[in-house]
Amino acid sequence: MGNTLIFGHKNPDTDTICSALVYADLKKQIGETAEAARLGVVNKETQFALDYFGVEAPQLIEKVEAGTDVILVDHNEFQQSVDNIQEVKIVEVVDHHRVSNFETKEPLYFRAEPVGCTATIINKMFKEKGVEVSKENAGLLLSAIISDSLLFKSPTCTKEDVDAAHELAEIAGVDLEKYGLDMLRAGADLSDKSALDLVTMDAKEFAMGNAKVEVAQVNAVDTNKVYEIQAELESEIEKIIQDKDLDLFLFVVTDILNNDSEVLALGQGNGKVETGYGVSLDNNRAFLKGVVSRKKQIVNVLTEEFTK
Amino acid sequence: MGNTLIFGHKNPDTDTICSALVYADLKKQIGETAEAARLGVVNKETQFALDYFGVEAPQLIEKVEAGTDVILVDHNEFQQSVDNIQEVKIVEVVDHHRVSNFETKEPLYFRAEPVGCTATIINKMFKEKGVEVSKENAGLLLSAIISDSLLFKSPTCTKEDVDAAHELAEIAGVDLEKYGLDMLRAGADLSDKSALDLVTMDAKEFAMGNAKVEVAQVNAVDTNKVYEIQAELESEIEKIIQDKDLDLFLFVVTDILNNDSEVLALGQGNGKVETGYGVSLDNNRAFLKGVVSRKKQIVNVLTEEFTK
Repeated sequence: MGNTLIFGHKNPDTDTICSALVYADLKKQIGETAEAARLGVVNKETQFALDYFGVEAPQLIEKVEAGTDVILVDHNEFQQSVDNIQEVKIVEVVDHHRVSNFETKEPLYFRAEPVGCTATIINKMFKEKGVEVSKENAGLLLSAIISDSLLFKSPTCTKEDVDAAHELAEIAGVDLEKYGLDMLRAGADLSDKSALDLVTMDAKEFAMGNAKVEVAQVNAVDTNKVYEIQAELESEIEKIIQDKDLDLFLFVVTDILNNDSEVLALGQGNGKVETGYGVSLDNNRAFLKGVVSRKKQIVNVLTEEFTK
Repeated sequence: MGNTLIFGHKNPDTDTICSALVYADLKKQIGETAEAARLGVVNKETQFALDYFGVEAPQLIEKVEAGTDVILVDHNEFQQSVDNIQEVKIVEVVDHHRVSNFETKEPLYFRAEPVGCTATIINKMFKEKGVEVSKENAGLLLSAIISDSLLFKSPTCTKEDVDAAHELAEIAGVDLEKYGLDMLRAGADLSDKSALDLVTMDAKEFAMGNAKVEVAQVNAVDTNKVYEIQAELESEIEKIIQDKDLDLFLFVVTDILNNDSEVLALGQGNGKVETGYGVSLDNNRAFLKGVVSRKKQIVNVLTEEFTK
């Protein structure tokens, strides 16, 4: 019997990396063996959090070795997971997303809750197991909540997330607002990103009815700046649509200060963005007022459109 | 906003009925509104338990009204659920089976654990919520555990199930062994069952790779007695195979005293039973030594065969 690996989704974000690290630590503290892993490059926002609390990023893996058990955090849809997910044994899932394109041959632990962040559930598990949250773990969990909730501005954010964040900020010894904005700004620094980086760094693929849809999201302080290279962005996106045979690629640039998004929609299904939000695409783009959450304001809206 | 309905799978068994009833009661006790329901006829074993503890069966429903939220217990696979499950909002799942053919548009509470019985998880939830288990609720949860574990003989049974059962027997004020055998015997009384009853009363359909497989199980004290009408059983099964376009129908008669099963396998995929268990079908039948659990000794074995 091999080791147990804990990892989140491809194109890892702060919740995926931090929840994997902290849950692996909880497992160790209750006498189980588990190691955290990641499926891609650590983004700047996450690196800021890891550096701040002096924690190493988990190991990068491309596939899971045969005989290894896996625990998925912050995702369950197979197309967002490791490439050979169908060949391994999933023993546990801890997640806060919809359940879709997931199946197992055998019963497992599956814990999903409709909260804003996986880290909020992991924080609860420490209490259930009677294990104290260390300063480092508190810092990582807090960072995940700030990231997923955009400092509590996202409609996915629940009272549980806010309460957990305040509690964790206390243990981590940081000023929540100041630390949070610093971390989000670090993530919104896109100065060294190529067009390809921007459209892939936080992209997730979804099955919606019979359609294949990819939604990529970047946080920015100035959304216009990102679209200065719109032609290059479109050329990269067109290649991805061809490669993956997508019906729609939606590129979402979220303004972290004003909490709106400017989106770029390509693919034969881009009319669904117009009908879903009652907007007209102009130069393939539209402004979506108050839209910041891929989960609660984009994936559900588009799934509804594609399954009508 | 409508009511919330809690129900288990089609062809309800004791865990499905009792977990729905008791979970609805827990919800009420913590101030939430929920009503238990059932998707089919109450079997004799379950009726024995309901009568013993003086509890009414939940309401029978054929479909869920629009606007009603639902909580699924003891199942998640859509083909085992209410016919219009795709049209309703699933807000929660409490289950102990594999996850398969299940999806939602939005995040939800999903709690699955690899224990022998949903009732064991429900019992844990009373403790987590700090609510006392009444004598009636204890009796129903105990009955579910005895039923799913065949009085602890099934390989699906875990230490958690056994511990919960002993604790619940105490609260319910019954002798666990005596009550358990009486209840199982009541369920194994097949004297008034037609061939059609026998092959449908506890049948569940599964997607295995590209194959459609139905596995029906009955408990008996004398398996030979059931096969006295083998010709009739086969004729009913052939009709079901035609109707549902099944690749395999496996009829499992489980000897509750010796804990083995005598199975009848029809359909073009019946060779999978031979390769899966290393047996030869004789007159379409085979003796499967020590096999009592559909979940841990049948569905997993056949899924493996059909996906090879």
